[in-house]
Amino acid sequence: MKILVTAFDPFGGESINPALEAVKLMKDTIEGAEIVKLEIPTVFRKSIDKTREAIEKENPDVVLCVGQAGGRFEVTPERVAINVDDARIPDNENNQPIDVPIYEDGEPAYFSTLPVKAMVEAIRSEGLPSSLSNSAGTFVCNHIMYGVLYTIDKMGKDIRAGFVHVPFIPQQVARRPAPAPSMSMEDIARALEAAVSAIVKNEEDIVAVGGKID
Amino acid sequence: MKILVTAFDPFGGESINPALEAVKLMKDTIEGAEIVKLEIPTVFRKSIDKTREAIEKENPDVVLCVGQAGGRFEVTPERVAINVDDARIPDNENNQPIDVPIYEDGEPAYFSTLPVKAMVEAIRSEGLPSSLSNSAGTFVCNHIMYGVLYTIDKMGKDIRAGFVHVPFIPQQVARRPAPAPSMSMEDIARALEAAVSAIVKNEEDIVAVGGKID
Amino acid sequence: MKILVTAFDPFGGESINPALEAVKLMKDTIEGAEIVKLEIPTVFRKSIDKTREAIEKENPDVVLCVGQAGGRFEVTPERVAINVDDARIPDNENNQPIDVPIYEDGEPAYFSTLPVKAMVEAIRSEGLPSSLSNSAGTFVCNHIMYGVLYTIDKMGKDIRAGFVHVPFIPQQVARRPAPAPSMSMEDIARALEAAVSAIVKNEEDIVAVGGKID
Amino acid sequence: MKILVTAFDPFGGESINPALEAVKLMKDTIEGAEIVKLEIPTVFRKSIDKTREAIEKENPDVVLCVGQAGGRFEVTPERVAINVDDARIPDNENNQPIDVPIYEDGEPAYFSTLPVKAMVEAIRSEGLPSSLSNSAGTFVCNHIMYGVLYTIDKMGKDIRAGFVHVPFIPQQVARRPAPAPSMSMEDIARALEAAVSAIVKNEEDIVAVGGKID
Repeated sequence: MKILVTAFDPFGGESINPALEAVKLMKDTIEGAEIVKLEIPTVFRKSIDKTREAIEKENPDVVLCVGQAGGRFEVTPERVAINVDDARIPDNENNQPIDVPIYEDGEPAYFSTLPVKAMVEAIRSEGLPSSLSNSAGTFVCNHIMYGVLYTIDKMGKDIRAGFVHVPFIPQQVARRPAPAPSMSMEDIARALEAAVSAIVKNEEDIVAVGGKID
Repeated sequence: MKILVTAFDPFGGESINPALEAVKLMKDTIEGAEIVKLEIPTVFRKSIDKTREAIEKENPDVVLCVGQAGGRFEVTPERVAINVDDARIPDNENNQPIDVPIYEDGEPAYFSTLPVKAMVEAIRSEGLPSSLSNSAGTFVCNHIMYGVLYTIDKMGKDIRAGFVHVPFIPQQVARRPAPAPSMSMEDIARALEAAVSAIVKNEEDIVAVGGKID
Repeated sequence: MKILVTAFDPFGGESINPALEAVKLMKDTIEGAEIVKLEIPTVFRKSIDKTREAIEKENPDVVLCVGQAGGRFEVTPERVAINVDDARIPDNENNQPIDVPIYEDGEPAYFSTLPVKAMVEAIRSEGLPSSLSNSAGTFVCNHIMYGVLYTIDKMGKDIRAGFVHVPFIPQQVARRPAPAPSMSMEDIARALEAAVSAIVKNEEDIVAVGGKID
Repeated sequence: MKILVTAFDPFGGESINPALEAVKLMKDTIEGAEIVKLEIPTVFRKSIDKTREAIEKENPDVVLCVGQAGGRFEVTPERVAINVDDARIPDNENNQPIDVPIYEDGEPAYFSTLPVKAMVEAIRSEGLPSSLSNSAGTFVCNHIMYGVLYTIDKMGKDIRAGFVHVPFIPQQVARRPAPAPSMSMEDIARALEAAVSAIVKNEEDIVAVGGKID
């Protein structure tokens, strides 16, 4: 099995992106699956383009996109991506789309085809906090998740795909007033490895309580 | 203009549901629009059935569903409803669906057809906290929002519809350890009236920054 | 019984101070006790001076100081004031003392002589969130609480005294990103009346679980 | 220089106490200072007795007590300990004192004699979140801090002493609903080493903005 793992490049004037660094820390082989790591630009459209090229070149069985969600306490697999770009801040090339569809001919939403509840359970079993998220936001993270699922759908390929959000690392919040949750880069890498393990082992998701009231 | 406003009945052993009580406090005419109030059961399916019957009987121009989101700080119009029921707790008739579609023949998601950003702005202008939410959860609130938008779509009717989540009232959190945000019932009613005002005045939504990074 | 209730004037460029407005909303007689309201300046030293003058003039049985704690979820009676000024921001006359004692000849700390746990219980019984706080901070709120208890001690008077912190009102957080808790001005006034009721009825505090682990 | 570092034993049915484990991970020599580590019981009185015995035996220059504050986001040196025990839960020998002084003949409070702001700055410089806390609670953590400062005062010894609270580790919150902040055990140990470094290097505290409004 071959798994393509993407992570965004640094943005907002930062010299490093901890989510990207955590992906680089991941093992290159997990449960027998080959991990191919790809850095993608924090730019609407171009992030999808670069991932599509890698899908064509690598022909992976799975695409797992990773991004940072500053403010979250847990590593959170995403359930669904919605067909809208609504940027609160500009991306790395100064695009700031507001309330426009990502693809005019796309579905209103695409659900993750990864075993998201099995991933949550695997991360928790590693002793790390995790839960299932029902919104990937409306910035580049939702954009890449939607774009990859749309692309695979249009290609007619049998590739499973989805997205995982990770918290800040401590260094990013050292001088930020609480509440500012974080997780060490080593623990983030360990959580992502556990999530990949669950992907390799679970063609279908497990049945588990994990919904949200609101 | 006629606006149907729904709210769930009490559940979880409570004798009153503050969201319902706040809806009852709302004026019966807002900006010239007639407000028709409907109590619906906190039950999968039946909540949709009862709302559909009211739509057929009242023939409203707008359907606004209201529900409580314990733990939220703000009054939050919802952007989108997704095609899944995933109940963390049972409903009032002990149904607890896990990861099943609401309608097999429905879209993956329906976007609110209400002017959600204008509603946020109107509530804030009343001096009350509000923001746009990108997830209505996976319990009865997402269920009724999805069900109403699906029903209107299948009926081929030109009815605008959507959902607003409201916080706990202080009485519900008086003995709950912080952090437990709340808003007074009078303020919730005032926020809902402001939201309805925005619906009456805005056929199309305004363009405003209001997306979420994650 | 006569109860002197103080509240700070507006500061930070604001035209009103909601804590002061809530105090103004309080009834003038509670459980037979006369309430005397006093506006004091948000200034180190001068706030104590003005309160001492009122104590000399009014000869009250109780002094209750009220201040705002933006970010708190509950109305919180304070257990203790400590002998230090450590200002994160300047006061209304641009004083910003850092790590200096309030009174060189004062105790390291003074405990509230009000029935703080009875006050918490009374507020909760009104259906409003409350808990006992173990720190009034190190700005003007701790300063006035310490100063009043020091003053009464040095005067040798038999006056009970203490401090209550109240949350923001919704208007102050309408455009502030969550988490930004608030309480309506009417509810704050009602909580303060309940606290005063408890003061009138309880010469000694009740015995109740209400400590904090940390 | 010799520094005695204490940490509580496991409690609440747990087999390990992560604060204790983090202390064990600390280097045995920091900036030339010898670190002596001491496990103390999570029991009122006995924790003070055992620390006093170690002070008599080891004759340290500094005593640094460490404890866990579940729910905190940062490593927080404590500014002050107050003369009260008010237990929300029983200790390891089922004592649950409510609103009683720790020592009848003690001061109302003792301020830390460690350079708390220099410690905060040193921890942040390591890329880890930290701030100064103004309350150590009313359970065994405040108890040991108060008891050690009282003991040193009564002994007439020239020993500097204080307390640092540390967050949960991820393993403790893996299945706890957010918000549940944590810090890795390695990072906690690194923060404590940075704090000790600051203690060795700063006889007097630095002057820095670090107060709290409330």
